[in-house]
Amino acid sequence: MVRSVCVVGAGRVGSAVSARLEERGVALLEHDAELILLCVPDRAIVEVAAAIRPGPWVAHVSGATPLAALDPHERRFCVHPLQTIVHGRGPEQLDGAFAAVTAETEEARTLGFELARVLGLEPFELRDEDKALYHCAASFGCPFLIGLYRTAASLFESVGAPPEALVPLMRRTIENGFELTGPATRGDTGTIEAHLEALRERRPDLEPLYGLLTQAVGR
Amino acid sequence: MVRSVCVVGAGRVGSAVSARLEERGVALLEHDAELILLCVPDRAIVEVAAAIRPGPWVAHVSGATPLAALDPHERRFCVHPLQTIVHGRGPEQLDGAFAAVTAETEEARTLGFELARVLGLEPFELRDEDKALYHCAASFGCPFLIGLYRTAASLFESVGAPPEALVPLMRRTIENGFELTGPATRGDTGTIEAHLEALRERRPDLEPLYGLLTQAVGR
Repeated sequence: MVRSVCVVGAGRVGSAVSARLEERGVALLEHDAELILLCVPDRAIVEVAAAIRPGPWVAHVSGATPLAALDPHERRFCVHPLQTIVHGRGPEQLDGAFAAVTAETEEARTLGFELARVLGLEPFELRDEDKALYHCAASFGCPFLIGLYRTAASLFESVGAPPEALVPLMRRTIENGFELTGPATRGDTGTIEAHLEALRERRPDLEPLYGLLTQAVGR
Repeated sequence: MVRSVCVVGAGRVGSAVSARLEERGVALLEHDAELILLCVPDRAIVEVAAAIRPGPWVAHVSGATPLAALDPHERRFCVHPLQTIVHGRGPEQLDGAFAAVTAETEEARTLGFELARVLGLEPFELRDEDKALYHCAASFGCPFLIGLYRTAASLFESVGAPPEALVPLMRRTIENGFELTGPATRGDTGTIEAHLEALRERRPDLEPLYGLLTQAVGR
C-alpha cells in the first residue's frame, strides 16, 4: 500500500477520504506523494489529471467516469465509494460501504483494492466499459430512492398523513431483505385497481410511474 | 380501552397483533369480546363482517379498504399498521411504526387511537375517502422500494457487481433524511447522458422508468 497520498478536492468525498487516510496513518502530502487521488467533480477530472506531471500513481473516485479521463497517466485506477456522503459527518460514513475498483493492470488492481480497504470499504472489481451502466444502477439506490420517498411524501401530504410515517416502513423493507408482503403477495388485484382509480382521479401524473414500478416489483 | 379482543385471522398481521395484545394483558377471547378485530385478506372483510352478529365493536386492519366493508356494523373503525410484517418475527415488528386510524365518530376514533398505542403504533387520522390514495402512497414505501432494488440488482448482476453493495447505500440514504448528494446536486448533466446512453444500448426497457424517476427526484 502507498504510504503517502495527495488528495485533490475537499468536497464531501475528499473530506471524508482525507480524514480516513489520516486516521489510518497515511501521510497526506501536497507534493511528492506516491498517489494523487482526485476527489473533484466528474467534469473536472480530465483537466486536473492533465495538469499533473507523470510519475506518481493517479486515481479518481468517480463512479461514472472512465479511466481514460486520467490520460496521459498510465499508472492509474479508480476507487468509487458506493455511498452517499454528506457534509457534517466524518470518515465513519465510509464504514461498511462497498467500492467499485477499476484498473487495467494487476498492480493497479491490487493497489485499488488496498486503498479501498484502508478507507474502510469492501472492494469489488468493475470493468471500465461497465461503469456507466453500474453508476446508472447506483442511481436507483440513492437519488431514485429519494424520488420514491418524495413522491410518496407528496401523496401523504395530500391526505394529511405524516410523511415521516414512511420511514419505519422503508427501513424495515430493507432490513427484511426486500421480502414482499401485503396485498401484492396475495394476488389482490382489487387493491391495485383501487390505487389506479385514486391516481386517475387525483394524481393522474403519477399513473405511468405507478405502472412501471408495479412491473419492476415482478423483476 | 377495550379489555377483550377477538382477533380473526392468524396471518402475518393477525399473529403479530395477537401476540402484542397478549403481551399487554388484553384478553384474547373467541366469544363475547368487546372488539372483534378482522386481520383477514382485504377481499374477505365484507363476508366475515357480515357474518358477525351486531353488538361488539368491529374493526379491520386494511389500509385500502373502506369502513363500509364492515357493514352492517356501526360501532366500527380501522387501524392500519403502516409496516411490512413478515412471518418468523414477533410483535416487536410493530414497534416504532405508524398507524392510520379511520373512524366516523369521536368514540370510535378514541378507541382506534387507543388500540394503535396498545399495539405499539403511533396513530394518525385518515379520512375514509382518502384510504385508496394513502395506500397507493404506501406502495411507494414498500413494494415499489423492492421494485427499485430488484431493478438495480439486475443491473448490478449484469456488470458483475454484488447486489448486496446496494444495501448500505439505500440504508444511508434513508438515515441521512433523503438528502440528495452526488452528480445530481451539481447539475452534472453529462452523467445523466452517460446513464441514458448505457441504458439505450443494454437495457432499453428501463429507459422510461429512469426518466420518470429522474422527474420524481425533482418533486
